[in-house]
Amino acid sequence: MTHPGDPHSIQPSGCITTRDFDIRTDFPMYRVYRGGKSIGSRRDLLDVWSDDYVGFLIGCSFSFEAALTAAGLPPRHQKTNSMVAMYRTNLPLLPAGIFTGATCIVSMRPYRQDRIQAVRDVTRPYLATHGEPVAWGWEAVIALGIKDIQCPDFGDPPDLEDGEVPVFWACGVTPQMAVESAGDKIEDLVFAHEPGHMLVTDYTAEDLQKLGRS
Amino acid sequence: MTHPGDPHSIQPSGCITTRDFDIRTDFPMYRVYRGGKSIGSRRDLLDVWSDDYVGFLIGCSFSFEAALTAAGLPPRHQKTNSMVAMYRTNLPLLPAGIFTGATCIVSMRPYRQDRIQAVRDVTRPYLATHGEPVAWGWEAVIALGIKDIQCPDFGDPPDLEDGEVPVFWACGVTPQMAVESAGDKIEDLVFAHEPGHMLVTDYTAEDLQKLGRS
Repeated sequence: MTHPGDPHSIQPSGCITTRDFDIRTDFPMYRVYRGGKSIGSRRDLLDVWSDDYVGFLIGCSFSFEAALTAAGLPPRHQKTNSMVAMYRTNLPLLPAGIFTGATCIVSMRPYRQDRIQAVRDVTRPYLATHGEPVAWGWEAVIALGIKDIQCPDFGDPPDLEDGEVPVFWACGVTPQMAVESAGDKIEDLVFAHEPGHMLVTDYTAEDLQKLGRS
Repeated sequence: MTHPGDPHSIQPSGCITTRDFDIRTDFPMYRVYRGGKSIGSRRDLLDVWSDDYVGFLIGCSFSFEAALTAAGLPPRHQKTNSMVAMYRTNLPLLPAGIFTGATCIVSMRPYRQDRIQAVRDVTRPYLATHGEPVAWGWEAVIALGIKDIQCPDFGDPPDLEDGEVPVFWACGVTPQMAVESAGDKIEDLVFAHEPGHMLVTDYTAEDLQKLGRS
């Protein structure tokens, strides 16, 4: 989290150690919301930032992909050099103040059914970056309200091989759904990352595994 | 949480300050599970406890009822001297290890639609005891998969007056659904509170409001 109005420092300090950090410029791409609607993408926020903004970072499931690969479970989208598929679901988020009625976004990586326990075990310790899967299998596609696995709401269409099933993790795009559902209750602009365009921090995967849920 | 095998102390220590505390006897009633099935109720656990058991306490929405009453929003079940109505829902819990496929239990208190913002505001600070409602209104009854509001799964049938709608909070009976869904994956007995028969601790409502999410 940043101090209000200060785009240069993040707490906890181990997250970003370089002094020239700027939350307004260091993401690969930003998405801008007004009244709960995306009004476009930007490469930086320099001319829209004001000193009453606060930034917060949440974890990304990309952080445990090295651990999956090390365990012989490389995510498919890395092999195909495509963006991980992300889907809107019907999983309700807990209401909090003006944020009501929103649902969870998930990312998906395909695995064989007999690898799912291993996939769960490898990703479980990464509580700060979504941890173990929230659902898996074709029955989960129906339960989550995903109409067509080949039509993700964000990212690229996935490549499932014979015998593989979808495995879903919570996704850092979810707060943007909360912003959408709050609509006009948020008077000013909200800045988020463009899905798939995350900030790279100084935390190593090992740091994140020690961090617990943050 | 207790130290393994020690039924007499709870951390954090402010929760229970009396030295004669015994987690095996101090609940009004216990429910016992074997293989994920309730096998009955007991007044104490003295002859089934062994020194490898660990106990943990979670908050109860009863803890914010005094605050609701102080705000002119007394829960109906207190007036009718009945047990709060509790329902199974289709809200999925996040999978964790052997605990998969379980869903959330909710408690319900009826309020007029125009009081719901006040009810949310009053209960929001009590993060350690479920905080603000997870859902409200007749559309929530359908969304949560509750078939008949007059047939709760635990507690007494509710008394809704004209113009009132159901307001739902997360409920401390939920872990028992996780135990049910784990089934035979838990080899030994699991002890829980009998729904509606909670442990009374030394925390005041004011303590709980300061505690945050715990």
